[in-house]
Amino acid sequence: MRKIAVLTGGGDCPGLNAVIRAVAKSAHQYGLEVLGIRDGFRGAVEGDFMPLTLKEVSGILPRGGTILGTTNRDNPFAYETIVNGTAQILDRSGDVIRNLKDHDVDALLVIGGDGSLNIALKFANLGLNVIGIPKTIDNDLMATDQTFGFQTAVDTATEALDRLHTTAESHHRVMVLEVMGRYAGWIALYAGVAGGADVILIPEIPYTLNRVAQAIQKRAKQGKKFSIIVVAEGAKPRGGEIVVERLVSGRFDPIKLGGIGAKIGNDLEEQYGLETRVTVLGHLQRGGSPNSYDRVLSSRYGVAAVDAALEEEFGIMVALRGRDIVRVPLNKAVDKLKQVLLIDPLLIAARNLGLEMGD
Amino acid sequence: MRKIAVLTGGGDCPGLNAVIRAVAKSAHQYGLEVLGIRDGFRGAVEGDFMPLTLKEVSGILPRGGTILGTTNRDNPFAYETIVNGTAQILDRSGDVIRNLKDHDVDALLVIGGDGSLNIALKFANLGLNVIGIPKTIDNDLMATDQTFGFQTAVDTATEALDRLHTTAESHHRVMVLEVMGRYAGWIALYAGVAGGADVILIPEIPYTLNRVAQAIQKRAKQGKKFSIIVVAEGAKPRGGEIVVERLVSGRFDPIKLGGIGAKIGNDLEEQYGLETRVTVLGHLQRGGSPNSYDRVLSSRYGVAAVDAALEEEFGIMVALRGRDIVRVPLNKAVDKLKQVLLIDPLLIAARNLGLEMGD
Amino acid sequence: MRKIAVLTGGGDCPGLNAVIRAVAKSAHQYGLEVLGIRDGFRGAVEGDFMPLTLKEVSGILPRGGTILGTTNRDNPFAYETIVNGTAQILDRSGDVIRNLKDHDVDALLVIGGDGSLNIALKFANLGLNVIGIPKTIDNDLMATDQTFGFQTAVDTATEALDRLHTTAESHHRVMVLEVMGRYAGWIALYAGVAGGADVILIPEIPYTLNRVAQAIQKRAKQGKKFSIIVVAEGAKPRGGEIVVERLVSGRFDPIKLGGIGAKIGNDLEEQYGLETRVTVLGHLQRGGSPNSYDRVLSSRYGVAAVDAALEEEFGIMVALRGRDIVRVPLNKAVDKLKQVLLIDPLLIAARNLGLEMGD
Amino acid sequence: MRKIAVLTGGGDCPGLNAVIRAVAKSAHQYGLEVLGIRDGFRGAVEGDFMPLTLKEVSGILPRGGTILGTTNRDNPFAYETIVNGTAQILDRSGDVIRNLKDHDVDALLVIGGDGSLNIALKFANLGLNVIGIPKTIDNDLMATDQTFGFQTAVDTATEALDRLHTTAESHHRVMVLEVMGRYAGWIALYAGVAGGADVILIPEIPYTLNRVAQAIQKRAKQGKKFSIIVVAEGAKPRGGEIVVERLVSGRFDPIKLGGIGAKIGNDLEEQYGLETRVTVLGHLQRGGSPNSYDRVLSSRYGVAAVDAALEEEFGIMVALRGRDIVRVPLNKAVDKLKQVLLIDPLLIAARNLGLEMGD
Repeated sequence: MRKIAVLTGGGDCPGLNAVIRAVAKSAHQYGLEVLGIRDGFRGAVEGDFMPLTLKEVSGILPRGGTILGTTNRDNPFAYETIVNGTAQILDRSGDVIRNLKDHDVDALLVIGGDGSLNIALKFANLGLNVIGIPKTIDNDLMATDQTFGFQTAVDTATEALDRLHTTAESHHRVMVLEVMGRYAGWIALYAGVAGGADVILIPEIPYTLNRVAQAIQKRAKQGKKFSIIVVAEGAKPRGGEIVVERLVSGRFDPIKLGGIGAKIGNDLEEQYGLETRVTVLGHLQRGGSPNSYDRVLSSRYGVAAVDAALEEEFGIMVALRGRDIVRVPLNKAVDKLKQVLLIDPLLIAARNLGLEMGD
Repeated sequence: MRKIAVLTGGGDCPGLNAVIRAVAKSAHQYGLEVLGIRDGFRGAVEGDFMPLTLKEVSGILPRGGTILGTTNRDNPFAYETIVNGTAQILDRSGDVIRNLKDHDVDALLVIGGDGSLNIALKFANLGLNVIGIPKTIDNDLMATDQTFGFQTAVDTATEALDRLHTTAESHHRVMVLEVMGRYAGWIALYAGVAGGADVILIPEIPYTLNRVAQAIQKRAKQGKKFSIIVVAEGAKPRGGEIVVERLVSGRFDPIKLGGIGAKIGNDLEEQYGLETRVTVLGHLQRGGSPNSYDRVLSSRYGVAAVDAALEEEFGIMVALRGRDIVRVPLNKAVDKLKQVLLIDPLLIAARNLGLEMGD
Repeated sequence: MRKIAVLTGGGDCPGLNAVIRAVAKSAHQYGLEVLGIRDGFRGAVEGDFMPLTLKEVSGILPRGGTILGTTNRDNPFAYETIVNGTAQILDRSGDVIRNLKDHDVDALLVIGGDGSLNIALKFANLGLNVIGIPKTIDNDLMATDQTFGFQTAVDTATEALDRLHTTAESHHRVMVLEVMGRYAGWIALYAGVAGGADVILIPEIPYTLNRVAQAIQKRAKQGKKFSIIVVAEGAKPRGGEIVVERLVSGRFDPIKLGGIGAKIGNDLEEQYGLETRVTVLGHLQRGGSPNSYDRVLSSRYGVAAVDAALEEEFGIMVALRGRDIVRVPLNKAVDKLKQVLLIDPLLIAARNLGLEMGD
Repeated sequence: MRKIAVLTGGGDCPGLNAVIRAVAKSAHQYGLEVLGIRDGFRGAVEGDFMPLTLKEVSGILPRGGTILGTTNRDNPFAYETIVNGTAQILDRSGDVIRNLKDHDVDALLVIGGDGSLNIALKFANLGLNVIGIPKTIDNDLMATDQTFGFQTAVDTATEALDRLHTTAESHHRVMVLEVMGRYAGWIALYAGVAGGADVILIPEIPYTLNRVAQAIQKRAKQGKKFSIIVVAEGAKPRGGEIVVERLVSGRFDPIKLGGIGAKIGNDLEEQYGLETRVTVLGHLQRGGSPNSYDRVLSSRYGVAAVDAALEEEFGIMVALRGRDIVRVPLNKAVDKLKQVLLIDPLLIAARNLGLEMGD
């Protein structure tokens, strides 16, 4: 083990730079050389590498984003390539393997979510020495107790709820905050409890609008003339598909234009006459400096990945279990979504606090 | 002068509580009694008053919102009133005057923007002892150098730009941030400079999309594969009306659903193939704790309003001029919008920094 | 179970109000009445109680401190009492029991650290229905994985390190930050890793100054002309007592004088000629709004304590184990300090990142 | 005008990087080349220069500190130089002039406070093309309405006061916060008003301890069992020298020992029996990201300095007057300290709010 390479794939997430720095610093302690690969698997296909010495990672710990760049598209096994002036989808995995070999890379560290780790698994199956580091801001990976970036996103959403509270209270309004969480409602659940929301709506529990309205009206009767709803972007009404008209020709983008948050706000106004305002937190959850929790977790992941490389244990992902960083097989790491269960202790605690979950 | 009353009108704004506290504390120093009026002019019409002693204002300085409540609708001169089961619009100004008299109120302090101060002026013309305190988060009042809440909104927008920067850079994207400013682009201009934006679009300067795209493409040529655009909600393309389809039946709400930010993002993708993401900051700008600048300014306004009451100078608004708080006639205070001029020193500085203004 | 009482004891800690609110809200869900006891055990001795309905706890979730007040002195079993004009130390535990009985309190919830929980245990042994909720900002209680307030303190210390970094780098200086941790170095360890410190000194590992100086000098050789040291207040040099007298002869420096942080700064200047500045974070770590992590944890503790009361399980403390809140016997809860072990995974990770621990 | 050089001198201050960036970006717009000089006048004497293109200043706007480095010692007119193994103090101003000439520098921009600007003035008198940019975190320069970094320091101190409030209130204590301000009390005055302090002590108004104690006791009588004192490091008791020796006999308290803050805390405990805790904010005020206000002001100073260079107006300092950046002669810029006058409008407002100033 003399040289490792590292790439970041998928959406931006607070802590990526902290992982990269930990990889470089820890590798330096052991005399390993580190290469950075630019823009995720794009750089791996096209051989776009850069050295990662202590100098490159100096000062990046508190910074959001990734100094390596990232994309949430490029897949070497189906890679858009211009051939004779025409775009074709080709299997370019061979280029990746050749590029790594040409640079004498002994192990590849992939920091990514579901998509990137599945690609990593394919390369592992092709014999590449791959180590995964889990990154999903939604915290919806079953194989690890927690992914980095999640706690920072919860902080951001909680701070937004604090701000909305004062406006809601001053104006006697309903305020809706839409947060991330396409398939899992962790950010909504944690931020909802931390931000003192009155209603939390998550993908795992289809909501009935009437329940939401009743909770708001019950508060009004108790003299609380405002309410706060936090809703995960993937929340859905019970028994009904959400029909959001194609607002933007081309592709649908929930961050951009009226997703579920807007629908709920609109429905509460039209069906229940409740004055409502909607805020979509969107990309503000992805950017910014990681909080101390995520910096520690990210640093530990980076150190643990280098440890695994040194011990030549490949085809694995590092994961948090209790207070320990463990190794789990890559194929087990990516096959299961971690959703909020009805018996989740925080969900039960939320109900005991009187929060309405819409069911 | 023995008793004064104070109300907050119009949209929520950081610093409202700081003004209320300063009024109460300063009045206490002079032995004046203070009443708070609930929910702006609604409470004035309906006689919904509360005592404002040191106890009520204890601890409210750092808090957003207003402990008195506010509305941005109710106008005593055209007040929706249920008569025999039917809603009618009546002139209820007489009720306001009677309620104040019944409570032995010697002077009324109105903390509000354009709308509330115009109502205050009408009451002043009817002989009421009125003192105005300027509140517009957009900072678009000609009569005062600065309104409270503005600097905090700029902080919030700047922090959002900091967050978007890391994502923009990591993903090589264009990020658009839509901020408040219906008629004046002050928040966009200040936050754009403070947040290191590349393009600033404001209502005062109709934009040409091609100029925006060129600025982005020029950066890309210099190796900067990302760009940040900050746009005021009231910005408009040159020579064209914005046609935003009625996304939500009922009424149009730019905060809720795809205003000018969404249009720009969409246009840049469709017409120039630039990958773009849009964030609408919305109500996050109104809530939250006022920063130190706004707490000081708010406190000074509150003290100055009580001073004016003690000196029995009415029909005026307190205003900031340089380092001094001065008094301006209410009729002059509300008749002019302060927009960004082409010769504004900060606008010129922004251009010298290489920022594109879209013209 | 019809009525419970709650008190907060010991030093201020972010999250106290969040626990109190959760107790009140959760109790309300179950129809329990809640009384608050003012200023810890002082109020219990003197019968200083207040109602805790939803109204009292409204809006307190994000606020630091405790609305109930606290002291870190008063012990009912040895309580300073003025008898005939003379101060005497009396056993007033009987007053506590009588006051609770007079108010028909069925269970007493004690939110506190080592000291308060020991008192709680004594009352449990006297037959009182007592439930403990662990509070130590140092996170040094063996019986629980984490105490609330700790993560916020780490955030505060990390943010301070971020600030000191820029000054250290600009001035090519050594900056020392002294943080809390009298017997356990958890805050220093976590904040040191999160804040990118170069040296971490904790009570568990007596330090050798020469090791510290060497680490700084090694960095200087690598072109890093600044270093950051984070030191827990309870850190000690190897094999020696700390003797603090006049630390700086010659000129007066208010930053420098003080505890172990000042000693280290002084020693590095005098013995190694390293320009050093010292900051003592002190009470800034205790105050302020709890972060989202601590708000969730505090809320869960509050809910769990009410659950235990409802199930009439007394003489226990609620504790975090993995993702669950469990109950541990009070006598086991307070008998052991949780220190940083040499095999602690974060300590090992810190070393792998190249951090100097002074040993 | 083809090439300019820029250096930063004196103590670290939020906004230095923002000025440097604005100089580089604005110069780039006009086709000027920019050199950075490392570590203030040290680099000028020793010819330690670096290029400052758009690349070097990319991303530095939000960062504290200065990428150029700084010292608060080196004076080219009396520069410690090793000659034949012995340290001598020599006039090295000739080296500075020669180095600038060798690099074809047409104008030198000096970002600094009193000390650096006095050196700049001497060089201007020797015929060098010098332009000053004012930097004092204390805001005590008469020639400019405001210096950059000040508002950020006030934010930091205000946030500290917010934190101390919750502890003070929970523990019924007096909390003292010592902030910067050796000769002028601006930070203490602004932060004291913004943070809701009860007592503000500044160098301009020697304090009488009895007045301070009375203010605290008066609050206690009104049921406010805590008080907050903010004190500038240069504050002094009336008619007496401060003698700081062993301030606390008996037990050792690292928080307590120190400068004027510690003295006040100690005196209040010993002479009035008031339980008091002291926090010294120290270097935390200098570091960290500049707030939006300071980023805008810094950027404007940088642009204005380049403007002056282009118009070949030298021997001046750029300064804020109202909303404009003006030019003032360097000799007028540095000759007067701006202290808080007894007729300062904010000081008067503070008194009207009931704040005790110690006189």
